[in-house]
Amino acid sequence: MPCPFASTPAPPYYAVIFAAQRRAGADAGYAQTAARMAQLATAQPGYLGVVSSRDADGFGITVSYWRDAESIRAWREQIEHARARARGRECWYTHYQLRVARVERAYDWAAAAPPEDLP
Amino acid sequence: MPCPFASTPAPPYYAVIFAAQRRAGADAGYAQTAARMAQLATAQPGYLGVVSSRDADGFGITVSYWRDAESIRAWREQIEHARARARGRECWYTHYQLRVARVERAYDWAAAAPPEDLP
Repeated sequence: MPCPFASTPAPPYYAVIFAAQRRAGADAGYAQTAARMAQLATAQPGYLGVVSSRDADGFGITVSYWRDAESIRAWREQIEHARARARGRECWYTHYQLRVARVERAYDWAAAAPPEDLP
Repeated sequence: MPCPFASTPAPPYYAVIFAAQRRAGADAGYAQTAARMAQLATAQPGYLGVVSSRDADGFGITVSYWRDAESIRAWREQIEHARARARGRECWYTHYQLRVARVERAYDWAAAAPPEDLP
Protein backbone atom coordinates (compact mmCIF):
# COMPACT_ATOMS: atom_id res chain seq x y z
CA MET A 1 0.00 0.00 0.00
CA PRO A 2 1.53 3.37 -0.96
CA CYS A 3 1.84 5.96 1.81
CA PRO A 4 -1.45 7.90 1.82
CA PHE A 5 -0.02 11.03 3.47
CA ALA A 6 1.23 14.23 1.84
CA SER A 7 4.74 15.59 2.38
CA THR A 8 4.12 19.31 2.48
CA PRO A 9 6.60 22.14 3.18
CA ALA A 10 6.22 24.56 6.08
CA PRO A 11 3.13 26.80 5.78
CA PRO A 12 1.86 28.99 4.28
CA TYR A 13 0.56 27.15 1.23
CA TYR A 14 -2.91 26.34 -0.13
CA ALA A 15 -5.37 23.48 0.15
CA VAL A 16 -8.22 22.55 -2.19
CA ILE A 17 -10.78 20.56 -0.20
CA PHE A 18 -13.06 18.52 -2.47
CA ALA A 19 -15.92 16.56 -0.85
CA ALA A 20 -18.13 14.58 -3.23
CA GLN A 21 -20.89 12.01 -3.31
CA ARG A 22 -20.53 9.47 -6.13
CA ARG A 23 -23.59 8.25 -8.00
CA ALA A 24 -24.51 4.65 -7.31
CA GLY A 25 -23.07 2.32 -9.92
CA ALA A 26 -21.61 5.13 -12.04
CA ASP A 27 -18.11 3.76 -12.57
CA ALA A 28 -17.66 4.01 -16.34
CA GLY A 29 -14.24 5.55 -16.85
CA TYR A 30 -14.05 7.01 -13.36
CA ALA A 31 -11.01 5.15 -12.02
CA GLN A 32 -9.07 5.72 -15.23
CA THR A 33 -9.83 9.45 -15.22
CA ALA A 34 -9.02 9.77 -11.51
CA ALA A 35 -5.63 8.12 -12.06
CA ARG A 36 -4.94 10.37 -15.07
CA MET A 37 -5.85 13.51 -13.08
CA ALA A 38 -3.55 12.44 -10.22
CA GLN A 39 -0.74 11.99 -12.75
CA LEU A 40 -1.42 15.37 -14.42
CA ALA A 41 -1.67 17.21 -11.09
CA THR A 42 1.73 15.90 -10.01
CA ALA A 43 3.25 17.52 -13.09
CA GLN A 44 1.59 20.92 -12.50
CA PRO A 45 3.73 23.83 -11.26
CA GLY A 46 3.15 24.42 -7.57
CA TYR A 47 1.65 20.99 -6.79
CA LEU A 48 2.68 19.86 -3.29
CA GLY A 49 0.72 16.67 -2.60
CA VAL A 50 -2.66 15.06 -2.05
CA VAL A 51 -4.63 12.98 0.45
CA SER A 52 -7.80 11.13 -0.49
CA SER A 53 -10.36 8.84 1.14
CA ARG A 54 -13.67 7.37 -0.03
CA ASP A 55 -16.05 5.46 2.19
CA ALA A 56 -18.29 2.50 1.41
CA ASP A 57 -21.27 4.81 0.70
CA GLY A 58 -19.36 6.60 -2.09
CA PHE A 59 -18.72 9.77 -0.09
CA GLY A 60 -15.15 10.92 -0.63
CA ILE A 61 -12.82 13.72 0.41
CA THR A 62 -9.72 14.71 -1.54
CA VAL A 63 -7.43 17.47 -0.29
CA SER A 64 -4.75 18.65 -2.70
CA TYR A 65 -2.01 21.03 -1.60
CA TRP A 66 -0.56 23.83 -3.72
CA ARG A 67 2.15 26.45 -3.39
CA ASP A 68 -0.19 29.39 -4.01
CA ALA A 69 -3.55 30.50 -5.39
CA GLU A 70 -2.01 31.00 -8.85
CA SER A 71 -1.05 27.30 -9.03
CA ILE A 72 -4.64 26.35 -8.21
CA ARG A 73 -5.96 28.68 -10.90
CA ALA A 74 -3.63 27.19 -13.52
CA TRP A 75 -4.69 23.65 -12.58
CA ARG A 76 -8.37 24.61 -12.80
CA GLU A 77 -7.78 25.93 -16.33
CA GLN A 78 -5.80 22.87 -17.48
CA ILE A 79 -7.93 21.69 -20.39
CA GLU A 80 -7.95 17.95 -19.68
CA HIS A 81 -8.79 18.66 -16.04
CA ALA A 82 -11.63 20.99 -17.04
CA ARG A 83 -13.06 18.23 -19.28
CA ALA A 84 -12.79 15.70 -16.44
CA ARG A 85 -14.70 18.03 -14.11
CA ALA A 86 -17.47 18.43 -16.67
CA ARG A 87 -17.63 14.63 -17.02
CA GLY A 88 -17.80 14.37 -13.23
CA ARG A 89 -20.88 16.58 -13.16
CA GLU A 90 -22.51 14.69 -16.05
CA CYS A 91 -21.74 11.15 -14.95
CA TRP A 92 -20.06 10.53 -11.63
CA TYR A 93 -21.26 12.84 -8.88
CA THR A 94 -24.60 13.80 -7.40
CA HIS A 95 -23.21 16.61 -5.24
CA TYR A 96 -19.87 18.17 -4.41
CA GLN A 97 -18.34 20.94 -2.34
CA LEU A 98 -15.08 22.70 -3.08
CA ARG A 99 -13.19 24.86 -0.61
CA VAL A 100 -9.98 26.80 -1.31
CA ALA A 101 -8.09 27.57 1.89
CA ARG A 102 -4.75 29.03 2.93
CA VAL A 103 -2.93 26.66 5.28
CA GLU A 104 -1.55 28.55 8.25
CA ARG A 105 -0.47 25.76 10.62
CA ALA A 106 0.50 22.10 10.18
CA TYR A 107 1.32 19.24 12.55
CA ASP A 108 2.34 15.69 11.80
CA TRP A 109 2.36 12.87 14.32
CA ALA A 110 3.45 9.25 13.93
CA ALA A 111 3.61 6.45 16.46
CA ALA A 112 7.14 5.36 17.33
CA ALA A 113 8.12 2.42 15.14
CA PRO A 114 8.19 -0.87 17.01
CA PRO A 115 11.76 -1.92 17.92
CA GLU A 116 11.82 -4.75 15.40
CA ASP A 117 15.56 -5.27 15.58
CA LEU A 118 15.67 -5.90 19.34
CA PRO A 119 16.06 -9.49 20.53
CA MET B 1 -28.23 7.95 5.37
CA PRO B 2 -27.76 11.45 6.85
CA CYS B 3 -26.50 14.14 4.48
CA PRO B 4 -22.68 13.98 4.60
CA PHE B 5 -22.12 17.58 3.46
CA ALA B 6 -21.49 20.69 5.56
CA SER B 7 -23.68 23.78 5.37
CA THR B 8 -21.15 26.55 5.78
CA PRO B 9 -21.67 30.33 5.59
CA ALA B 10 -19.91 32.54 3.04
CA PRO B 11 -16.10 32.67 3.52
CA PRO B 12 -13.93 33.58 5.26
CA TYR B 13 -13.97 30.92 7.97
CA TYR B 14 -11.56 28.20 9.07
CA ALA B 15 -11.01 24.52 8.28
CA VAL B 16 -9.22 21.88 10.35
CA ILE B 17 -8.07 19.12 7.99
CA PHE B 18 -7.35 15.88 9.87
CA ALA B 19 -5.95 12.93 7.86
CA ALA B 20 -5.25 9.77 9.83
CA GLN B 21 -4.34 6.13 9.44
CA ARG B 22 -6.15 3.82 11.87
CA ARG B 23 -4.31 0.90 13.44
CA ALA B 24 -5.46 -2.49 12.22
CA GLY B 25 -8.05 -4.01 14.53
CA ALA B 26 -7.83 -1.18 17.07
CA ASP B 27 -11.53 -0.52 17.56
CA ALA B 28 -11.91 -0.58 21.35
CA GLY B 29 -13.98 2.47 22.21
CA TYR B 30 -13.20 4.26 18.97
CA ALA B 31 -16.71 4.57 17.52
CA GLN B 32 -18.17 5.63 20.85
CA THR B 33 -15.50 8.31 21.32
CA ALA B 34 -15.85 9.56 17.73
CA ALA B 35 -19.62 9.94 18.20
CA ARG B 36 -19.11 11.75 21.50
CA MET B 37 -16.56 14.14 19.94
CA ALA B 38 -18.95 14.89 17.07
CA GLN B 39 -21.66 15.68 19.62
CA LEU B 40 -19.33 17.88 21.70
CA ALA B 41 -17.98 19.75 18.67
CA THR B 42 -21.51 20.65 17.55
CA ALA B 43 -22.03 22.38 20.90
CA GLN B 44 -18.78 24.39 20.73
CA PRO B 45 -18.95 28.14 19.99
CA GLY B 46 -17.98 28.83 16.39
CA TYR B 47 -18.55 25.29 15.09
CA LEU B 48 -19.88 25.40 11.52
CA GLY B 49 -19.93 21.79 10.29
CA VAL B 50 -17.93 18.71 9.38
CA VAL B 51 -17.31 16.27 6.54
CA SER B 52 -15.69 12.89 7.07
CA SER B 53 -14.72 9.83 5.05
CA ARG B 54 -12.77 6.66 5.85
CA ASP B 55 -11.71 4.09 3.28
CA ALA B 56 -11.47 0.32 3.56
CA ASP B 57 -7.75 0.52 4.46
CA GLY B 58 -8.50 2.65 7.55
CA PHE B 59 -7.24 5.91 6.05
CA GLY B 60 -9.64 8.71 6.89
CA ILE B 61 -10.03 12.44 6.33
CA THR B 62 -12.19 14.67 8.54
CA VAL B 63 -12.56 18.36 7.78
CA SER B 64 -14.27 20.45 10.45
CA TYR B 65 -15.24 24.06 9.80
CA TRP B 66 -15.02 26.88 12.34
CA ARG B 67 -15.88 30.57 12.50
CA ASP B 68 -12.35 31.67 13.43
CA ALA B 69 -8.98 30.57 14.83
CA GLU B 70 -10.14 31.32 18.38
CA SER B 71 -12.97 28.76 18.09
CA ILE B 72 -10.43 26.13 16.99
CA ARG B 73 -8.16 26.98 19.92
CA ALA B 74 -11.05 26.63 22.40
CA TRP B 75 -12.03 23.25 20.91
CA ARG B 76 -8.44 22.03 21.12
CA GLU B 77 -8.38 22.94 24.82
CA GLN B 78 -11.74 21.32 25.62
CA ILE B 79 -10.70 18.77 28.24
CA GLU B 80 -12.67 15.76 27.02
CA HIS B 81 -11.43 16.42 23.48
CA ALA B 82 -7.82 16.67 24.68
CA ARG B 83 -8.19 13.29 26.44
CA ALA B 84 -9.68 11.73 23.31
CA ARG B 85 -6.71 12.96 21.25
CA ALA B 86 -4.27 11.42 23.72
CA ARG B 87 -6.23 8.16 23.52
CA GLY B 88 -6.05 8.37 19.73
CA ARG B 89 -2.27 8.55 19.83
CA GLU B 90 -2.05 5.69 22.35
CA CYS B 91 -4.56 3.31 20.80
CA TRP B 92 -6.18 4.19 17.51
CA TYR B 93 -3.80 5.84 15.06
CA THR B 94 -0.43 5.04 13.58
CA HIS B 95 0.02 8.42 11.90
CA TYR B 96 -1.92 11.63 11.43
CA GLN B 97 -1.60 15.04 9.84
CA LEU B 98 -3.42 18.16 10.96
CA ARG B 99 -3.73 21.33 8.90
CA VAL B 100 -5.41 24.56 10.00
CA ALA B 101 -6.45 26.68 7.03
CA ARG B 102 -8.41 29.85 6.34
CA VAL B 103 -11.13 29.20 3.76
CA GLU B 104 -11.14 31.93 1.13
CA ARG B 105 -13.46 30.54 -1.55
CA ALA B 106 -16.25 27.97 -1.60
CA TYR B 107 -18.40 26.37 -4.31
CA ASP B 108 -21.22 23.88 -4.03
CA TRP B 109 -22.66 21.90 -6.91
CA ALA B 110 -25.54 19.46 -6.99
CA ALA B 111 -27.10 17.57 -9.88
CA ALA B 112 -30.60 18.70 -10.76
CA ALA B 113 -33.12 16.46 -9.05
CA PRO B 114 -34.81 14.03 -11.44
CA PRO B 115 -38.33 15.19 -12.44
CA GLU B 116 -40.04 12.46 -10.46
CA ASP B 117 -43.48 14.00 -10.66
CA LEU B 118 -43.59 14.11 -14.47
CA PRO B 119 -45.75 11.54 -16.25
